[in-house]
Formats: sequence, structure tokens, C-alpha cells
Amino acid sequence: MIQIAILGLGTVGTGVARVVAENAKQIERKLGEPLQVKAVLVRHFKDGPYRQLMTDDFKKIEEDDAIRVVVETIGGVEAAYEYTKRALAAGKHVVTANKQLVAEKGCELLALARRKNVSYLFEASVGGGIPVLHPLTQCMAANRIDEVYGILNGTTNYILTRMVRTGAFFSDALREAQAKGYAEADPTADVEGIDAGRKICILADLAFGRQLNPEKVPMEGISKLSLRDVKIAQRAGYRVKLLGRAVRLPGVGRTAYVAPHLIPEESPIANVEDVFNAIVVRGNATGEVMFYGRGAGELPTASACVADVMECLQSSPKREEIGWLAEEEGFEDPAELLTRHYFRIEGSLTDAAMAFGQVEVLSEDGETAFLTEPLSGADAAKQSRFLNVLACMRVLE
Amino acid sequence: MIQIAILGLGTVGTGVARVVAENAKQIERKLGEPLQVKAVLVRHFKDGPYRQLMTDDFKKIEEDDAIRVVVETIGGVEAAYEYTKRALAAGKHVVTANKQLVAEKGCELLALARRKNVSYLFEASVGGGIPVLHPLTQCMAANRIDEVYGILNGTTNYILTRMVRTGAFFSDALREAQAKGYAEADPTADVEGIDAGRKICILADLAFGRQLNPEKVPMEGISKLSLRDVKIAQRAGYRVKLLGRAVRLPGVGRTAYVAPHLIPEESPIANVEDVFNAIVVRGNATGEVMFYGRGAGELPTASACVADVMECLQSSPKREEIGWLAEEEGFEDPAELLTRHYFRIEGSLTDAAMAFGQVEVLSEDGETAFLTEPLSGADAAKQSRFLNVLACMRVLE
Repeated sequence: MIQIAILGLGTVGTGVARVVAENAKQIERKLGEPLQVKAVLVRHFKDGPYRQLMTDDFKKIEEDDAIRVVVETIGGVEAAYEYTKRALAAGKHVVTANKQLVAEKGCELLALARRKNVSYLFEASVGGGIPVLHPLTQCMAANRIDEVYGILNGTTNYILTRMVRTGAFFSDALREAQAKGYAEADPTADVEGIDAGRKICILADLAFGRQLNPEKVPMEGISKLSLRDVKIAQRAGYRVKLLGRAVRLPGVGRTAYVAPHLIPEESPIANVEDVFNAIVVRGNATGEVMFYGRGAGELPTASACVADVMECLQSSPKREEIGWLAEEEGFEDPAELLTRHYFRIEGSLTDAAMAFGQVEVLSEDGETAFLTEPLSGADAAKQSRFLNVLACMRVLE
Repeated sequence: MIQIAILGLGTVGTGVARVVAENAKQIERKLGEPLQVKAVLVRHFKDGPYRQLMTDDFKKIEEDDAIRVVVETIGGVEAAYEYTKRALAAGKHVVTANKQLVAEKGCELLALARRKNVSYLFEASVGGGIPVLHPLTQCMAANRIDEVYGILNGTTNYILTRMVRTGAFFSDALREAQAKGYAEADPTADVEGIDAGRKICILADLAFGRQLNPEKVPMEGISKLSLRDVKIAQRAGYRVKLLGRAVRLPGVGRTAYVAPHLIPEESPIANVEDVFNAIVVRGNATGEVMFYGRGAGELPTASACVADVMECLQSSPKREEIGWLAEEEGFEDPAELLTRHYFRIEGSLTDAAMAFGQVEVLSEDGETAFLTEPLSGADAAKQSRFLNVLACMRVLE
């Protein structure tokens, strides 16, 4: 019998308890012994199926040697950070879906875990139930990873899908997402690209082996996205998707950002709709690999946490590949990356051609929408400085 | 310094040597020490970059205690089976991309590996460079896996893509695939579904935990597929794809088969084109997850082998989840599975309605093409026995 504790009993915490109970047979077959939730840390006691497991005193968990793994589902940094450190220091493995904590403090917590000869695992922090961090670090371990990008936030992808399918404005699609429970009452972290930003930081940390400071990563969401651009893009054979993207640069260089992109409709990632997520990893040997599935939700995310619990118990915590260096140097401004750019301007084709030379016209209906040749974001800004720019997005091909 | 041997120097074997050399830096960073190819087993000595590593005597590898991992890239069963057993018995880890050997003898070889406290890993045997076996067994370990299906053969997917895009007949598309090096001179294993069949057996073994006998798995390829059906399907919003599919049934029951299917064009797997592969895994907690990428090729497949080499060296070989029971009982005829069926008959809509009641008509141009309501393959055969059936395929929705 292996005993674990869950910190927090929100959506993911409840899901972890459910998966442990409902899939007990599968889990026992693979672990060789049963898995049991021994304690659940809560702030306020509540009636329900887990009532007799509840405690509001973390010390009871910290000092219980029978508890070998702690699943942190509190979220945020403060209490989660504190309890994670204490659990690791007490020699317990810690598993989490907390992307903010991993993006900000992951490097330090991994180092602490290594010193204590335990694991700190966080597969569920990116892509919910989609396996991506383990495949990236293990199955693609013989690759030099050159780029990672993806649809990392289900809420914004749902909103974009509604805008494309029903011609809804952003604000209406957001309200619809809230009504369906896909978006929080305060949707800032989702729609402003912050959630996707934390996830691309974690992916970049693992892919390139050095800490990315989330504060340096430019994050642009979809709250200012115009339905008009979505429609022009669609008529021209593109889909607008919010992507997190991280690119390896020469030496220890690397860059990352979050922004809406135009993607050709025949690209597999262009067909990722609703609340689904997809992450593309480009390795120098394997080429592009894509991982697709439900990026959020109680059971998908919880099942990824429980798989990490099982992984902790079976694997050596000494594995070097899950971890990265604390050094932040080498981060470069993503404005230097070359791509084609989409522009919509209040102005004529002549204005566009004066600024950019040869362009591909997408629309001349009152305003002018066009695609440039490949150029850096910095040049795109410079060359368009005398234009009345209504919208500008990168094209990912 | 960790030393390995490669058996065979064909496409994959050469690729393994190349990946070890070209990505030496990445590999060393993750392993903590350099990886080196010490010996290559060949039948005939040849000049080239690996000339001084070559031997034609397996004993030299078997008895060399410095060689910790053997990468078997011979293919087929006989010699590969023999050398794999001897390498495992000598206490060496073995890594392979050999799907035939794993499908037929994997259970026995895994048991031998466990007894010898070493690993037998074969991520590259399914999906080439696409991580799928590790994600299935580890990241989705907390799920009950209910179904696995996928486009498992790049050659046939290339042929189908050409038929859709250019209206080529099967025979012309096959010649094109051969000219491009995507198909062998003898393409039987690919076009008759045998290659996909071996892969779906391995996926089912791992997903359901019991041996599938490849000889019992019905395998239908695309050699008899008519361009007419591809076109009718396309006009009706479907793509024809060759799928391997394995489904969990009550108790220890399970079934598997390979056959062309109609797939709705908005499904992510319908948009997997050319030589790309994609595998969908459905877990009871995670829902459907898809893995997509290059399913073959020298470097993708080789990099998966090298990642397995690294995995062997870092993980405990005692992991229970990579393995399955030898018992074959519980395999049921896939004819019992319910799906809609596509038919093209020489006959009228009245004939179709007499046989199946309500049908969805796709074409009445000389012949009649239609979709039935969901029914078993057995019933589809029974109800159509008085029809002049020109084509019949399942629809996967």
C-alpha cells in the first residue's frame, strides 16, 4: 500500500482523488501495490466523500512518514511554494499541475528535489492530460530541440473557434465560454496570454536547458483581436490561433513569446479546435512531432498528476534530463525572429507597397490587408511606422 | 563513457550511428557521460565511416562486458530473435525498431529481460520518431485505455494522399511512392496492411496488458481500394485512411484489425497526410490524445532508438508497465464492433433500402453508394449478402 496526500481540493485535487479511486485496478496492476489517498489539505472543512481525510494542518502531512508523495493542487505561488519546499525537504516526492509555480520556481524546486533524492514532476502543468513534457525530455532525448510551439490555452482556442465558426465577436464568444465553464469570471490570465506564457516558459526551460524568466517573455493575448482579421485570414486560407512559441538561437541563445498567429489551414495545428490543445516539438533528428488532446479539465489533468505519482515511485530521481540550469543569460528579443507578417492598414495598396515592397494582398475592401515577405518583427514595426496599422500578426508556416 | 553496439547497418542502424555522433553534446549533457558506438555487427564488411567498428562475429559483442546496450536493427525474426536473446542473457539492455520481432516475440523477450534485470525497449517500432509507447504506458498510466487507433503506415498514407490530391489510381500512386523511396520494391507488407497490423498488435499488447497473436488479427490493406470510393467519400466530406484499430471489450476481451476507413474530414486524423503517421489513444480519464509526426525515416526512427538507449541506462528495468501477460485468451472477432458502414453496390437505392432500411445516399451515379446506420461487421455482411457489393468500408466517427 502506497499512501499519498493531496494539497487543495479544487477541480484538479478532486479529480486526483477520483482517478485514484476509479482506476484503482489499473494503477495497482502497474505499481504492483495499491495506491491510497491518506490525507487532503484544505483551508475549510467541508462535508463530502473525502471528509474524514481532511486536515487543515500541513504539519500532519509533512511529519507523516507513510506519505511518500504529495500532490500539490493549490495553484499560485505563495502557499504552494512553501508547502512544496517543505514536502521535498521532508523527503517526499511532489507532483503538481501548477504552471505558475513551475515557471517561476521550478528550477529551484528541482534542485531541492535532487538534493533530497526525490522527484518533482509536473507533466500536468502543460497540456493538461496530453503527454508532452515526458515525451519531450525522454523520448526525444537524442534530439537537439530547435523549436516548440503550440496552442497552449483551451479557453482562448474555444473563443477563436467560435469567432471562426459563428462569426461571433470576441466579447460574445468570451461570454459564451464563461457560460460553459471554460473561462473564469476573471479571464485575464487566459485571454491576455499569461497562462500560455507560463506554459511556453516551462517547455522552453526543458527544451533548451536554461531558465527563462517569465517576466521577460512578451505575452500578447486575443482580447484586442478583431473579428475582421479572423475573417480575412479565413478567406485567404489561414486560421488565427494563439500560439506560445520558443525558438533555439545560436550558442545558448533562445527566445519565446505568446501572440496570435496566422496558420495555413492545411497545417495539422490549424485544425485544432474548441478547448483542445496541441503542442509541436521540432527536433533536429525527429523533425516535427505534434501532441494533441484535452489541455484542461478535471479528469485529464488529474490523470496526468496520478501518472506522475506512479512515475515518482518507479523511477530514479537522479535523471538529469528533467531539470535545467538557473542561468538566464542568452534570452533574446523575439522581435528578431523572421516570419511573414499579416497587416491590416487604413490605407491603400500603394501605401503597403511603399512600406514593404512586394506584398500579397488579402483584402482591399475599404482597408487593405496583406502579407509581407519574411522579415523580423523589428523590421515589420520599423517599416510600418508611417502606416495607420489596424492589425499586425505573424504568419507561422 | 558508455559503449553500445549496433546490429545491422541498414537505414536505421546507420541512422543510430549518425545520431550518436551528431547529437553527442545533447546526449552527454543528459546522460552525464559520453555515448560511443563500440561495435557494429554486419554480414559483409564494407568500406565507410564505420569500417573499423565492424565485426561479423556476434560473440565479440556478446562477450564484451564494456558494451552495455545492443541496438538491434536487423529486422525480421530469425537472426534478430537469436541475437536479442543472447544479448539479454548476457546482461545487456536491448533496444529495437523491429516491429515484427516485438509483435511476435516481445512478451517472451520482455520476460527474459526482467529476469536478467535489464531493459528491452522498442519505442521506435511504432510511429518511428513519434513518441507513443512511452506516453501510452507511462504518462497515461493512470487511465484505463479503452481504444487505440491510428495511421500506422506512411507508405499507404502517401499513396492515399496522392489518390485524393491528384486523382491517381492506386497502381500509379504506388509506383510514385516507389520512385520516391517511400515504398519497397516488394510493397506487400505495407500495402496489404501487415506492417500496420504488427504495430497495432504492439499497441494493443501494451494498452490492454495481454498478448495479441498477430496471426489472428484480420489485416486488410489498400491494394483493392478503388479510386472511385476515395472520390465519393471525399465529395461527401470524408477521407479514406488505412487504420489499425484495437478496442477493449468487457472483461479481458479485446479485438484488433487493420482496414481502410472513412473518416470525417474535420477530424484531426483525417488531415494527416503524405508519409506522416498519427496515433490516437483513448483513456477513460484523459479522453482522446493524438500523437503525430514522421512515422519512418532514418533519423526519426534512429533518434527514438537512441532515446531508448538513454532510457535503459537511466531507469530501473523493474518497471511493470512495459510488458504484458502471455495469455492470449479474450481476443474476439472485430466483426462484432458496431460502426456505420460505407457501401458501393451495383444496384439501386431500393436495393440498398431493402437490405439496410434507412441509409444516407452519397452517390447514385450509375452505381449506388451509401452509409448505413451503425451495425456490426457481421450484420453488414449478412444484410448485404444478396447485394452486388463493389466496396465496403467502416466509418470511424
